Amino acid sequence: MKKLSIVDIANHLNVSKTTISFILNGRAQEKRIGKELVERVQKFVDEVGYKPNSLAKSLRTGKSNIIGLMVEDISNPFFAAIARLIEDRAYKNGYKIIYCSTDNDTSKTKDLINMFRDRHVDGYIIAPPEGIEEDISSLIKDGMPVVLFDRHLPNVSTDYVEIDNLFSTYNATMHLVQQGYKNIAFVTFASHQTQMQARLQGYKDAIKASGLRPVVQEIVFDQNEELIMGPIATFLKKNKNLDAVFFGTNHVGTCGLKVINNLGLKVPDDLALISFDDYDVFKLFSPPVSAIAQPIEAIADSVITVLLNKLNTSSQHISSQSIVLKTDFNIRGSSKAK
Amino acid sequence: MKKLSIVDIANHLNVSKTTISFILNGRAQEKRIGKELVERVQKFVDEVGYKPNSLAKSLRTGKSNIIGLMVEDISNPFFAAIARLIEDRAYKNGYKIIYCSTDNDTSKTKDLINMFRDRHVDGYIIAPPEGIEEDISSLIKDGMPVVLFDRHLPNVSTDYVEIDNLFSTYNATMHLVQQGYKNIAFVTFASHQTQMQARLQGYKDAIKASGLRPVVQEIVFDQNEELIMGPIATFLKKNKNLDAVFFGTNHVGTCGLKVINNLGLKVPDDLALISFDDYDVFKLFSPPVSAIAQPIEAIADSVITVLLNKLNTSSQHISSQSIVLKTDFNIRGSSKAK
Repeated sequence: MKKLSIVDIANHLNVSKTTISFILNGRAQEKRIGKELVERVQKFVDEVGYKPNSLAKSLRTGKSNIIGLMVEDISNPFFAAIARLIEDRAYKNGYKIIYCSTDNDTSKTKDLINMFRDRHVDGYIIAPPEGIEEDISSLIKDGMPVVLFDRHLPNVSTDYVEIDNLFSTYNATMHLVQQGYKNIAFVTFASHQTQMQARLQGYKDAIKASGLRPVVQEIVFDQNEELIMGPIATFLKKNKNLDAVFFGTNHVGTCGLKVINNLGLKVPDDLALISFDDYDVFKLFSPPVSAIAQPIEAIADSVITVLLNKLNTSSQHISSQSIVLKTDFNIRGSSKAK
Repeated sequence: MKKLSIVDIANHLNVSKTTISFILNGRAQEKRIGKELVERVQKFVDEVGYKPNSLAKSLRTGKSNIIGLMVEDISNPFFAAIARLIEDRAYKNGYKIIYCSTDNDTSKTKDLINMFRDRHVDGYIIAPPEGIEEDISSLIKDGMPVVLFDRHLPNVSTDYVEIDNLFSTYNATMHLVQQGYKNIAFVTFASHQTQMQARLQGYKDAIKASGLRPVVQEIVFDQNEELIMGPIATFLKKNKNLDAVFFGTNHVGTCGLKVINNLGLKVPDDLALISFDDYDVFKLFSPPVSAIAQPIEAIADSVITVLLNKLNTSSQHISSQSIVLKTDFNIRGSSKAK
């Protein structure tokens, strides 16, 4: 059965659309509409099971109970896990999440922000790509609740949830040094994003503090995995003196493991390994790979808590909040002492 | 700057809201609104850069260029990869995708369908949980384009995209038999969904055709991985005569590998392995695990092609279409001949 509209009800009861609308929106008394008519409308509505169109309702009230979530790439296990948990937490609090991948593409992201805006989402959770500062500033200026995560935009003052990237890579690099490794490379994606810059800096700081030489290989991201594996293979073949490699993301790490298998390298005897992010692929590798585990549940909890606070507080006086969470370093066989 | 509304424009030009609305919607001539006024409104609108609210527009036109995608669990790599590809294909065709996880929860799914409906999505792509037949039938009756994937609902006549589940497990079970394995178990999630039933049937058919005894272990799905690993461990300890195990999904397979590592079983000498779905974790295990690869790209392409055809055809005369795609069986070290 097709949903009844206010017009259908009005036609059926031979009453004006405006009157029906006032009654359904609880404004009968205010508008001095007779009790008898209110009862007649209510009875009919109960019988036919009319449900108000919530899109029209959100046009009136400006509330949709929907939160827009924008991640970089939903097929990345980090973002997939975060999205799943945020959706779960939000749903338990009466909010639905609709999400999209930005592909780190500025113009697609702008386009998606406009779509969310037009669909009247109540708030935004965004892992922002580069070049999106203006659009996010404009959302904030218009009073939209926005929480960033995974990274932040240095020139935009808003709430964000992050992990302690710099300390995490510093600490894990120091572990390699303590295990006796001396030629430690950092292989990562080329990126200006805050979290990637901080990871690189943590590695560099630890290498410098240990009096070693930094060896950094930045790889251009590509959807085609072969174009990530190729440069890693070339790099490893050219730098035969390396005794350890630190992969800067789960994606680089997974590609790196494939390259290491293809080259027939023994871990950790030929090459010790550490990866940022901790997933099944690292736990199940032989030997298991030491990895920095992001606190996925805590990130999701913090993001949704900060956003719900903003949604439920009409006051604009709360200054922005940044939450930095600790990671776990899971030491496994891939970084055994030399 | 805040977006101008029709009311703002009306107030500024001292013209009625209705008149502005008629002009902006190209109905000035029909409503006999003077040319001079139309030009004045148009000029002002051009100056201030007014953009019509596309939510209000979609209320009028019923078109949003948004497709609603509902997967079981976005953190499952199968659904994450499919969602990513569907989003990409849709975006290239001028459609945005908004997605949600159903958790295989009937009431959440009903709730999400209502939300999509209220947000005026143009079409639906759904991996349907059980118990949702009525809601999907109602969408279809109302003329909404719906494409199901991964599974179908036997009592609902609509388009769907699936893989050949029964043949895939039949074929892979036969491979184990040909490699000399005789005590082959099938470990899977307890489910009435069509794809899960077909996978189980393919295994049973092959076992029967080979004159062997079926050993089926159905596990109740749980978000907590320990509650999946526990029953697998108990099952493997109780059935020491098994020489091969076939995992019915990637999730069961990944949990199974962890159990096999924990129990210190050697693959394939103690136990040969095959898993449905093919992911990095299977490729990188030692030895690599033989796996049935779903044609993720072809599934995404088919889903979006079928839906776009429905969206672009005003005719209701197309009967529903079901597309069944072939899988690849990647034979690796985990099922080496005995």
